[in-house]
Amino acid sequence: MGNIITLTTDFGTQDHYVSVMKAVMLGIAPDVRFIDISHHIPAQDIMAGAWVTRNAAFEFPKGSVHLVVVDPGVGTDRNAMVLQVEGQYFVGPDNGIFSLLYNEFKFKAYKLTKEKFWRKDRSRTFHGRDIFAPVAAHLANGISPKDMGSPIKDLVNYHWAVPIGDKDGLQGWVIHIDRFGNLITNISEQLLEDTAGRRKVRVYVGNTIIDHMVNTFGDVEPGEPAAFIGSSGYLEVGINKGNAAEMLGVDKGAQISLVLQK
Amino acid sequence: MGNIITLTTDFGTQDHYVSVMKAVMLGIAPDVRFIDISHHIPAQDIMAGAWVTRNAAFEFPKGSVHLVVVDPGVGTDRNAMVLQVEGQYFVGPDNGIFSLLYNEFKFKAYKLTKEKFWRKDRSRTFHGRDIFAPVAAHLANGISPKDMGSPIKDLVNYHWAVPIGDKDGLQGWVIHIDRFGNLITNISEQLLEDTAGRRKVRVYVGNTIIDHMVNTFGDVEPGEPAAFIGSSGYLEVGINKGNAAEMLGVDKGAQISLVLQK
Amino acid sequence: MGNIITLTTDFGTQDHYVSVMKAVMLGIAPDVRFIDISHHIPAQDIMAGAWVTRNAAFEFPKGSVHLVVVDPGVGTDRNAMVLQVEGQYFVGPDNGIFSLLYNEFKFKAYKLTKEKFWRKDRSRTFHGRDIFAPVAAHLANGISPKDMGSPIKDLVNYHWAVPIGDKDGLQGWVIHIDRFGNLITNISEQLLEDTAGRRKVRVYVGNTIIDHMVNTFGDVEPGEPAAFIGSSGYLEVGINKGNAAEMLGVDKGAQISLVLQK
Repeated sequence: MGNIITLTTDFGTQDHYVSVMKAVMLGIAPDVRFIDISHHIPAQDIMAGAWVTRNAAFEFPKGSVHLVVVDPGVGTDRNAMVLQVEGQYFVGPDNGIFSLLYNEFKFKAYKLTKEKFWRKDRSRTFHGRDIFAPVAAHLANGISPKDMGSPIKDLVNYHWAVPIGDKDGLQGWVIHIDRFGNLITNISEQLLEDTAGRRKVRVYVGNTIIDHMVNTFGDVEPGEPAAFIGSSGYLEVGINKGNAAEMLGVDKGAQISLVLQK
Repeated sequence: MGNIITLTTDFGTQDHYVSVMKAVMLGIAPDVRFIDISHHIPAQDIMAGAWVTRNAAFEFPKGSVHLVVVDPGVGTDRNAMVLQVEGQYFVGPDNGIFSLLYNEFKFKAYKLTKEKFWRKDRSRTFHGRDIFAPVAAHLANGISPKDMGSPIKDLVNYHWAVPIGDKDGLQGWVIHIDRFGNLITNISEQLLEDTAGRRKVRVYVGNTIIDHMVNTFGDVEPGEPAAFIGSSGYLEVGINKGNAAEMLGVDKGAQISLVLQK
Repeated sequence: MGNIITLTTDFGTQDHYVSVMKAVMLGIAPDVRFIDISHHIPAQDIMAGAWVTRNAAFEFPKGSVHLVVVDPGVGTDRNAMVLQVEGQYFVGPDNGIFSLLYNEFKFKAYKLTKEKFWRKDRSRTFHGRDIFAPVAAHLANGISPKDMGSPIKDLVNYHWAVPIGDKDGLQGWVIHIDRFGNLITNISEQLLEDTAGRRKVRVYVGNTIIDHMVNTFGDVEPGEPAAFIGSSGYLEVGINKGNAAEMLGVDKGAQISLVLQK
């Protein structure tokens, strides 16, 4: 099997768009292996695309290529780019979709300029097919990003709600709600340890107070809310055998507060 | 191409969870071939997961590995297991998800105990990534389930509504509603033949009476209900060019009665 | 890697149907590569299936096999067929699903008759598994369609709303609404050029008048409607950062009129 190309888009799976990108890539790199990460990023939701990309990419073998197309500015003058991070390659628009990587890792970024690595017939509305897919396939074939563009420094970087901490606790935000209705926050296990040490914390989210953290929602009764470090290493609030977002009436963007107990 | 690993989960395809399991497996067994059976099992619906698994698995070549993760008890003390049935391997939680196999086939079951075949970093909420995926990949690599655990006898086994029969007919249940709204029951073609022989049957479901069975819904007028043996070998009720569940107001779990005609 | 088989169905991805077709094909052609085009064609919507097939297929390498199963007439006496078009193979029911190809390309069509290339156990409701999938796999293995059936001329051919033009302009129809709510019409770039030349056009759709065409929706303000040639080469109406179908209250089948300006 050839190299891995993952795909993350907001194209859905009803239309032909995703398969057309794969067809273009197969024309350039016939032996690549495709792994779909998600095509159900909410339409034009850069924050959701950034989150899913961040959580999936580093599980893959080094040298994998991650094609990320959530691109509300397609057809305008936003740049197309390749990012090299920890031996992984990311291809997509320079619209902030890789913000979570800039804040966490060392990286090299390239603005795509060499049209000979793009599709000959190009539209103004489907750069996924016309620019990003062919570039991803050439990366999988071993072409260096240096040969496809030029270094770029000034990247679009959204500083999404970084948690705020003081001696009394932490305040963060719900940045993702998964399929089970679990509330995933931007408060990492590391930040929590640095702030709270071995002290207990009480969690406030929406109108709900959770008295202490547990290891998993299996540790509370069915129907009860639980706060715990989720599988991605961030604080989550879930409900045992229930949907926390619905039952607690909490949406993406909601505040979550951790108050240190004496 | 390497061996086949199929995936059945309730993870949906919006989040990164499925792709992360594939990434873990590719790290262990780089040449496996993934076939997604379904990631849209309703959340924590063990009955639906069991049904889909049962209907798909035995179509695959012998030696295929079937990863099934519908796991409401993750993080509690439920066992993780491998099941060997008719040359197929199944990996998942011991929570009843394989009940339909226990009742129908001879099998060997193993409780997973050898942590060296698991992911090093393990969470309490994502055993799909941390235990089941690596074990599936090792099975695809030819490791025997005996080497990854120990035999287990006392398995969680749901005796879902078995049809009840007498000299007047049969009573069963709708155990699945497919995308087209067809009502799929737990009454098998074999049971129907054993009970009715060559006698005609009248079918009662919800408020609808269907006078006799046909070969397919194409045999009735558009908009009319039809009772027939479906492609999986079970009694189904469908509507020609219509949605039976919606039009007949029937939901999963509804009773269906077959009355033998004189 | 072996040959490519693409899949387009209205089966959805909740049930086991798609994976069972893949299992059958792997039993015949173990090295094929599957590319899912869409399994979310609206149930029994032949027009939508025809559109998606038309837009995806010709991007794939010559010799690819396209399995298309939107089959409301399964179990009746409609024919099963293979179509050979521009070096691509299409397999599916003769129910009009390939109409868009008949009108645009030269083709050869074969009615499937040789049962030895089908599944031994055959149902009356799942010809995707029992006839189309095995035939697709045999095509991928290099068996000629001639050996699996006999030439057929009189095909089911829907003449979907062909645009009407005169000296004042063009009238077409919305034949597809994509995931972003963009309205895709049956008015091709070529037809528009032939009719309008370099003259400006005003676009009427629903209650909305769009004064002139642009290159992409990025050329209008957020929330404003835009008419442009989309990535598939047809006139589209979209809304910058919005959902045109919802915001303009326009559905599939709606009229769209282009009036030439003096």
